Amino acid sequence: MKNRFSWKVCTALSALMVFGSPLYVANADTKPRTHYLAANSENVRWGNIGKGDPVLTVNSGDIVTVEAITHHSGDDYERMIEGDAGVEDIFHWDHVEKNEALRGPGVHIMTGPIAVEGAEPGDVLEVKILDMKLRPNGNEKYAGKTFGVNAAANWGYLYGDMAEEPKKREVVTIYEMNSDGVTDYATALYSFKWTPQTDPDGKVHPTIDYPGVIVDHDTVEENFNVLKGVKVPVRLHFGTMGVAPKEADVVDSVPPSYFGGNVDDWRVTEGATMYYPVSVPGALLQVGDPHAGQGDAEINGTAIETSVTGDIQVILHKKADLDKKLNNLSYPLLENENEWVVHGFSYANYLAELGENAQKDIYNNSSIDKAMKDAAHKTKDFLMKGMDLTEDEAYSLMSVSTDFGITQVVDGNWGVHAVITKGQFGEAEQKTVGLRNAFDSFGAKVVWNTPKQTVTISYNGNTLAMTIGQTTATYNGEKIKLTAPVRLAGGKAVISDYSASFYQSVLSKTN
Amino acid sequence: MKNRFSWKVCTALSALMVFGSPLYVANADTKPRTHYLAANSENVRWGNIGKGDPVLTVNSGDIVTVEAITHHSGDDYERMIEGDAGVEDIFHWDHVEKNEALRGPGVHIMTGPIAVEGAEPGDVLEVKILDMKLRPNGNEKYAGKTFGVNAAANWGYLYGDMAEEPKKREVVTIYEMNSDGVTDYATALYSFKWTPQTDPDGKVHPTIDYPGVIVDHDTVEENFNVLKGVKVPVRLHFGTMGVAPKEADVVDSVPPSYFGGNVDDWRVTEGATMYYPVSVPGALLQVGDPHAGQGDAEINGTAIETSVTGDIQVILHKKADLDKKLNNLSYPLLENENEWVVHGFSYANYLAELGENAQKDIYNNSSIDKAMKDAAHKTKDFLMKGMDLTEDEAYSLMSVSTDFGITQVVDGNWGVHAVITKGQFGEAEQKTVGLRNAFDSFGAKVVWNTPKQTVTISYNGNTLAMTIGQTTATYNGEKIKLTAPVRLAGGKAVISDYSASFYQSVLSKTN
Repeated sequence: MKNRFSWKVCTALSALMVFGSPLYVANADTKPRTHYLAANSENVRWGNIGKGDPVLTVNSGDIVTVEAITHHSGDDYERMIEGDAGVEDIFHWDHVEKNEALRGPGVHIMTGPIAVEGAEPGDVLEVKILDMKLRPNGNEKYAGKTFGVNAAANWGYLYGDMAEEPKKREVVTIYEMNSDGVTDYATALYSFKWTPQTDPDGKVHPTIDYPGVIVDHDTVEENFNVLKGVKVPVRLHFGTMGVAPKEADVVDSVPPSYFGGNVDDWRVTEGATMYYPVSVPGALLQVGDPHAGQGDAEINGTAIETSVTGDIQVILHKKADLDKKLNNLSYPLLENENEWVVHGFSYANYLAELGENAQKDIYNNSSIDKAMKDAAHKTKDFLMKGMDLTEDEAYSLMSVSTDFGITQVVDGNWGVHAVITKGQFGEAEQKTVGLRNAFDSFGAKVVWNTPKQTVTISYNGNTLAMTIGQTTATYNGEKIKLTAPVRLAGGKAVISDYSASFYQSVLSKTN
Repeated sequence: MKNRFSWKVCTALSALMVFGSPLYVANADTKPRTHYLAANSENVRWGNIGKGDPVLTVNSGDIVTVEAITHHSGDDYERMIEGDAGVEDIFHWDHVEKNEALRGPGVHIMTGPIAVEGAEPGDVLEVKILDMKLRPNGNEKYAGKTFGVNAAANWGYLYGDMAEEPKKREVVTIYEMNSDGVTDYATALYSFKWTPQTDPDGKVHPTIDYPGVIVDHDTVEENFNVLKGVKVPVRLHFGTMGVAPKEADVVDSVPPSYFGGNVDDWRVTEGATMYYPVSVPGALLQVGDPHAGQGDAEINGTAIETSVTGDIQVILHKKADLDKKLNNLSYPLLENENEWVVHGFSYANYLAELGENAQKDIYNNSSIDKAMKDAAHKTKDFLMKGMDLTEDEAYSLMSVSTDFGITQVVDGNWGVHAVITKGQFGEAEQKTVGLRNAFDSFGAKVVWNTPKQTVTISYNGNTLAMTIGQTTATYNGEKIKLTAPVRLAGGKAVISDYSASFYQSVLSKTN
């Protein structure tokens, strides 16, 4: 994994940068901006995704570079905290001082909340993930590298149900991110079995029962003979992203629900767009729990938990003007180049459904069967409402072409997702647009090199260079993977409307 | 979908054809053969996948062209039965005569059983799916076309749980297969709501409660305004394939289990290999329930049910010589170019686990949660045994890179599958082999055209022409999609060992 982005440079730039752009003008008085939200003890909350004072307020259309830090960094202080001022600040805890004194009821370090000007209950917040980059560790000893943690934890699906003794064990595996130039992958570096850890307040943690405890490596046995030769494909994504729910003030960051949160779908990655129903004024977007690799189910309790810096664009859709797909949206909906992904949960809105003790009871009542039922009904509704199908048409399509997968079985409110491909709806869902028109329309400069079959698009100080038929391109001189290649149709270069809109957003970032 | 294969011609050739081949010699006295197993009332059973007299006996390494017919053909007699002698023969039922008198306890028309010489309990039967082609309908009125049926049936997941009245309704949608030259797709032609149907014996079927009932189209209302503009991606696969279980003589074809059967995983397609644990002498392989499109979950009860002719190669692995991945195999295991897929069920072996009334009780006891637990344990076992991982290594990999999906929730014994990518294990699972060596080794002729970057491989009267870097190729002059493209590595053309073995099998078929 190339760590082409220097987070240190960006931290220095974290004051708001204001530049004009013709895009996403929420009203005549505001212009889109690019913001930088650094991760430090001022800008994060730990374990709570409820309402709270925003650390940043943005307008619809604004882009935010947001640093997101993994709460598992304490599993290897040397490789994941030391020398990184922001992470040190967040994790700082000694017998005198604890910077993030409030940790809970959940576990995730959430950057935000980000308030969106004018957002009100009933609106929908669109979040485009324009870019995600691994955060290099800050320790010169491991310069340029990024590490991640997978913890087979006590909340894992097979905890206590293992074949070998002790059946109830927690095992932490430290992964290291690499690239062979073509594929990014993670390799296991070493593992250790969790031993009781004593925190600075003298409390002993026999299991992984509190976030941010720094593991004393004198107490654990590091096993470097682990997963030799295995290269886990990197799937960078935000495990937890969403808006604040209205039902409670302090909200556990672990169970996902209608507001998003800890959805733990690896599809929430660069190139994807999330839609969240807004239920509190300002929406209060929060971003955290970055993952470098996860399978559907996240079965042992965690992914490869790491730290990531992302560029996101935030677009507010007002209730009165909602597209048919977003009207009455009651769950986190994902869109990417080729798919719509509907997210179901054991409880669609567990905070409302389970009553006063919802935040405790959710951990004892989930099942995949319940999540499947929820996903099935949501998918049928989406197809009827969003694709103008009758109930019978929708149900047939759900059977013959919709894939239902198990998102996670470890987050209290278990998840099932449904993947609906856009291609089957043709132009209705994947409209082909002329490349030149698409980029000309907002003032980008489009330059063709016909013999080389390349096109260079310049806008706002950014340059995107693409070649017909290729999925790799360069953006500001760095290699990127496109959501889809530029194609030729009728002698004309075309892309999908999703791609056109996505790269317009990417180019609109002010550096 | 090009229907490049004339089933009528092949039916005429259905006598066994015997040609030599150096491959898969089970013992010195037998040579691999290519067999043709036509679908007719002699060669199929209806609804029962238990032990029975084989209609064909083959040696390990033999290739069988097998015709498989959908049991839903009666939903549109004109388009799916009329004029097709084999299908007419199977479905023939009037007040005098019923060719397939025994239909049940399940619903599928199964071609076979095919006995494998020397197969004994404890062995593993490998079935490579070399080719699958749609079966054109036999009615000149619809010449060259293939139709399929999706039935939102009474065993569907949302039956009785629909929003519109009547909540308990069965809707049949007739699909037609098409191709735009690049992609094969299915379009809905018309749909109708099931009405009570009277069979030739005078019995009324208020719901889809018995297979092979011919729908009287004077009693239903055909709605041709259905799913307009929607092109469902074609995923040709065998819904039901497997060996006979040992636990009972007559076995319902609907619930899948350790022996395979109605697994309903769309990955059981051309280019894939299935492994089944043998539990009765001769293995007794059966093939049926072809599908043209299905999503994970098969939520409304059926896929796009159609008829297909497939080429399969059958390879017997004796108990004493089993590879570590196949040793003590207790479930249907799938392999393809890039993946291993483990299949879990609510009950790993429902016939043994549920006792005397298993075949009834299975319909009231399934859940996705149970299937997930089974899939989780099987996946951990597979990774430990097949990939030489420790339990902790396996569990970590299951969380960071294994995708768990819902295979089906409509077949009595519900399914969850786990997809394990081979790429992460590198050469251990995707060995790269020199193309020339791979095909030279069994006597194929390999001819290069260096300027054009093409290679032509001839063997046994067959010709495979590939171009470096391309996934499309031609086989005996017809366009096919390769499991993976030929690549250049160190100036040498290479393919994966899976590809090499697969196309060796493909070329070994005697036409």
